Amino acid sequence: MAQRLKASIVGVTGYTGLELLRMLIAHPQVDIAYLTSRQNPNTPIGDLYPHLSHLKLNVTDTDHETVAKESDVVFLALPHKTAQDTVAAMHGKTKIIDMSADFRLDDAKTYEKYYATPHVYPDLLKEAVYGAPEIYREQIKKAGIVANPGCFALLAQLMLLPYAGQIESVDIMAITGSSGSGKSPGEGTHHPVRNHNLKSYNINIHRHIPEIIRTAKITEGQLNFVPTSGPFTRGIFATAFVRTKAGAALPCAAEIYESHPFVRVMEDVALANIVGSNFCDLSYKKVSDGNYIVQGALDNLVKGAAGCAVQNMNLMFGLEETLGLSVLAPVYP
Amino acid sequence: MAQRLKASIVGVTGYTGLELLRMLIAHPQVDIAYLTSRQNPNTPIGDLYPHLSHLKLNVTDTDHETVAKESDVVFLALPHKTAQDTVAAMHGKTKIIDMSADFRLDDAKTYEKYYATPHVYPDLLKEAVYGAPEIYREQIKKAGIVANPGCFALLAQLMLLPYAGQIESVDIMAITGSSGSGKSPGEGTHHPVRNHNLKSYNINIHRHIPEIIRTAKITEGQLNFVPTSGPFTRGIFATAFVRTKAGAALPCAAEIYESHPFVRVMEDVALANIVGSNFCDLSYKKVSDGNYIVQGALDNLVKGAAGCAVQNMNLMFGLEETLGLSVLAPVYP
Amino acid sequence: MAQRLKASIVGVTGYTGLELLRMLIAHPQVDIAYLTSRQNPNTPIGDLYPHLSHLKLNVTDTDHETVAKESDVVFLALPHKTAQDTVAAMHGKTKIIDMSADFRLDDAKTYEKYYATPHVYPDLLKEAVYGAPEIYREQIKKAGIVANPGCFALLAQLMLLPYAGQIESVDIMAITGSSGSGKSPGEGTHHPVRNHNLKSYNINIHRHIPEIIRTAKITEGQLNFVPTSGPFTRGIFATAFVRTKAGAALPCAAEIYESHPFVRVMEDVALANIVGSNFCDLSYKKVSDGNYIVQGALDNLVKGAAGCAVQNMNLMFGLEETLGLSVLAPVYP
Amino acid sequence: MAQRLKASIVGVTGYTGLELLRMLIAHPQVDIAYLTSRQNPNTPIGDLYPHLSHLKLNVTDTDHETVAKESDVVFLALPHKTAQDTVAAMHGKTKIIDMSADFRLDDAKTYEKYYATPHVYPDLLKEAVYGAPEIYREQIKKAGIVANPGCFALLAQLMLLPYAGQIESVDIMAITGSSGSGKSPGEGTHHPVRNHNLKSYNINIHRHIPEIIRTAKITEGQLNFVPTSGPFTRGIFATAFVRTKAGAALPCAAEIYESHPFVRVMEDVALANIVGSNFCDLSYKKVSDGNYIVQGALDNLVKGAAGCAVQNMNLMFGLEETLGLSVLAPVYP
Repeated sequence: MAQRLKASIVGVTGYTGLELLRMLIAHPQVDIAYLTSRQNPNTPIGDLYPHLSHLKLNVTDTDHETVAKESDVVFLALPHKTAQDTVAAMHGKTKIIDMSADFRLDDAKTYEKYYATPHVYPDLLKEAVYGAPEIYREQIKKAGIVANPGCFALLAQLMLLPYAGQIESVDIMAITGSSGSGKSPGEGTHHPVRNHNLKSYNINIHRHIPEIIRTAKITEGQLNFVPTSGPFTRGIFATAFVRTKAGAALPCAAEIYESHPFVRVMEDVALANIVGSNFCDLSYKKVSDGNYIVQGALDNLVKGAAGCAVQNMNLMFGLEETLGLSVLAPVYP
Repeated sequence: MAQRLKASIVGVTGYTGLELLRMLIAHPQVDIAYLTSRQNPNTPIGDLYPHLSHLKLNVTDTDHETVAKESDVVFLALPHKTAQDTVAAMHGKTKIIDMSADFRLDDAKTYEKYYATPHVYPDLLKEAVYGAPEIYREQIKKAGIVANPGCFALLAQLMLLPYAGQIESVDIMAITGSSGSGKSPGEGTHHPVRNHNLKSYNINIHRHIPEIIRTAKITEGQLNFVPTSGPFTRGIFATAFVRTKAGAALPCAAEIYESHPFVRVMEDVALANIVGSNFCDLSYKKVSDGNYIVQGALDNLVKGAAGCAVQNMNLMFGLEETLGLSVLAPVYP
Repeated sequence: MAQRLKASIVGVTGYTGLELLRMLIAHPQVDIAYLTSRQNPNTPIGDLYPHLSHLKLNVTDTDHETVAKESDVVFLALPHKTAQDTVAAMHGKTKIIDMSADFRLDDAKTYEKYYATPHVYPDLLKEAVYGAPEIYREQIKKAGIVANPGCFALLAQLMLLPYAGQIESVDIMAITGSSGSGKSPGEGTHHPVRNHNLKSYNINIHRHIPEIIRTAKITEGQLNFVPTSGPFTRGIFATAFVRTKAGAALPCAAEIYESHPFVRVMEDVALANIVGSNFCDLSYKKVSDGNYIVQGALDNLVKGAAGCAVQNMNLMFGLEETLGLSVLAPVYP
Repeated sequence: MAQRLKASIVGVTGYTGLELLRMLIAHPQVDIAYLTSRQNPNTPIGDLYPHLSHLKLNVTDTDHETVAKESDVVFLALPHKTAQDTVAAMHGKTKIIDMSADFRLDDAKTYEKYYATPHVYPDLLKEAVYGAPEIYREQIKKAGIVANPGCFALLAQLMLLPYAGQIESVDIMAITGSSGSGKSPGEGTHHPVRNHNLKSYNINIHRHIPEIIRTAKITEGQLNFVPTSGPFTRGIFATAFVRTKAGAALPCAAEIYESHPFVRVMEDVALANIVGSNFCDLSYKKVSDGNYIVQGALDNLVKGAAGCAVQNMNLMFGLEETLGLSVLAPVYP
């Protein structure tokens, strides 16, 4: 009989936590152990989120010790910075997939530069594996801590990966849906305006930049990154203008991604094609010698967060990489 | 030479205040005297709202005394309850058009019942004229205080007015855009969900009910009122199922509204036909004897607020009722 | 080992066909036999719909005979009227779940009245079972032909079912997303206007009416039905004002639906809670004696079409009713 | 007394024609002479477009001769190619503002290359003035034929104009609302998908490219232009990554545009700030030496079409450039 995993979600009440739950419900070999939230001691999840009122599951504020001990894998859907202590507390007692930014970067200095706070566990930083399955599949299989990539970051990396090391400069314009801002209302997600607005923010200082340049093998100065908020709920659509180095010999992206079940290289990318699913769609157009237009799309909550995390879980436990994910086809239209 | 009016907006930074400004900019005989906001002492309006950065206008926290003295008319775009003191302070010194709910009802008791706070100026309540031009045009012309109707309330009243006094029962389902919730973000206007949601609230206890039943000449028990939030920015679309009294002799709604420049009786109402304009569109369908389906639409910020206020201003100063409003045709598509 | 079913979709390229495919992909005991479309002889489905480009499935124009012979169950996602001949051709050779309107009504006369064309197979009409699992579960289990309900119709029936036979009159206002109009562009689904529009159509003549009144046990004259198009992609949100007969003894809706896995009776219905899932959410509010406000929501493509069809398939083959459907939780936000 | 103009719109029933009418209604010195459409001989405009049912205006199929003779100015809101004959027929008899692409380019060869049809009146091509008031104000004042710019084209030109002649290369990603596709429904504007989609099209072959490179003083090879359709009705939001030539001495964009009433240079551009108005908002950010990010937004139907046309009309007739346009403030939110 197939192995069954006990999985817990710490911080289930945010959008990432909810999406993890949606994914895990679809997974044939997972049982939910704990769904925790500090704000909600022992509440039926349907009382907090009526769209889940059919589930007989409670949200609790169970302590980390217990959660770790009774779970094969724990997903942390916590805010950045808050996640660090939890990872430290659970490390070694269970497998951890951390959705926060706390263990995505290699060195504490870069972390401090971008997140404006020192990293408290630089040693753990070294131990964590960056959870981009298309780049670090083998390392993820053996990891005890996986740091799930940022949503913008994973998309940009998958777009640029085939050209990594051969890029002279790249300009990226990336548009994200409002679910990327999380469940807390704010000025930027106020419907009357967001409903028909487009606006860029954090140009060239966005926190996902260090993840992108590490994979693309470029410096900050070689990248322009323009994150933009768009009038839709789910997904990121990005366009990259890539200049490659003189004499660069570029591989065929379609071939590179052939063995990666959730990356689809196609003629034209459209945001609506990936909503609700774990797919990342990519297109590559040569404009002239050394001049490329690369486009990509993924669902920020799925491949950009919870779906990628489940993909990592599958790898960490020797399951089929697509298990529980391929049943969630894009919700179209 | 035509008379010019000095107009001020107290509380300009909310959506109703901003919309008033949009209307007044289009008015050929109005000069802006003061735009006030307690939170913003002497700030260029473009600093607060970049969409108005071309205007050479400052928002100030000028005291009521000065505003009243130097304005022919003052629009109050203040929260309910806050408006009362301002009306009292300015009364007699300038003409007042109050956009809040504070002077819409006839008696202090009903006010207290629906707004959960005693009315502090019951005498002024008697003096204020209810600003529905299609019902109280002559009284508005002579009024010193006009209480601008609620957005749901005006729509429902215009729908039911032709049948007033002859209604046995009426059920109204009314859907509003998110701008009706004002500029402050909240759970109900959080874009990720609002973007594709429909949800009713305050069923049969909404504060606009007393305005509706007064005009329709019915009791609370004869009305079901289901306000509903919809996934769009502007406008209210309402459907009323009307049962009339036995033997009711109903007039032709189209004839009743022929002399009212901003009410259009038509075959089929569509929300998109009125956005940005001061029109209220209505349709009347007889289903069977004594059984009618009435539909209506207006822009909650225009005919449901700022546009109706300017219409009232025109009446109060003997100007053409449509002045400055008819130039603002529906923004279609 | 569990039974595996060979399922085919005739007319896969419409929205209902695509949604069926999304559901069947998630079903653990179904293999796709044929996906057919007259317009597309032997085309990879990813060429027609890039969101499915990861699937190794071809769309073919295989003849009905072959499809029927090699399938345990055939879903017909064909236009009304076209489906009749296909049902007749396949009848007896395979189990049929017909998504069209052709076999929903009991008698040919009503069909002709509402669909303006004679019914060619009145005998088959008698054989087909109406596919509302919450009403005809036992009959569906033994059926050879199941006629899947209309999307508006199923929602209204589930709302009214607890009060069936005790209703004096009911007024329904129901708002549908644009996916209900199918994949062919038209004036009513033109984005520039639909994006912020609300408009009613086919008031009291909509084709789903006979299904509703049959279940509610009322006459056409006792129902007002106002279908309305709304500015969103998926879902129907309906409000019913119900007057019950004098002395009616109404059951508790929550109890009635306790044994029905996809109906959730809750305090407040919200459209966003059901998108992408097979749930139908319902709320019941008593306003006064004999006066009720009932609200409901479902995803028109899932519980209103493909999901309900899969639920029917499960029943017809003795599978767990929720199999393959409960893994598809609402896509929220 | 002020001069009054008789203005006609040929092809009033498209979105550009309708928007022209919205603008002209707000213009204090314009009277409508003719509103024509070949498809609609003598129909009240309210029968075609209920949002205009309050207007006492008929759409007619009056011949060009009559329209020209009885109008001071004629706006052509015709499809590309169709406009050519009308311009030729009316030329010299009235002033013409052509909204089509037919007279935007300087030479017939480029026209034929991009529009895949020979230009029939190359001589008239020389006579027409390109209607970008910020570039050709003085020429427009004396023109008999004004060719109104393309919507994408005007935005890109205003973004690049300050750097014209000093650009090494530029990559533009521009997202347009669905109203840019006109009133005819099509696959690309089908609401169920468009509602949450982003998709690029005509990359580097879009017809507005020759207008852009002429003003920017670059070759096709120096530009990447990625037009993209977005899930909103009105507006274009564009991001340009500009590399300037070595040693380029760039002027201050804010200073250049100080004297242009409808261009606002600001810190951050947001689409919602310009909807419904004639403003073009621009922002300029220096990233590093020779490396700039320029963003811009305008309403494709206003500054990108009808508003710019009225601005041109004002210039052609010696009126205040902002007349009838400054009363139309952005519709916010």
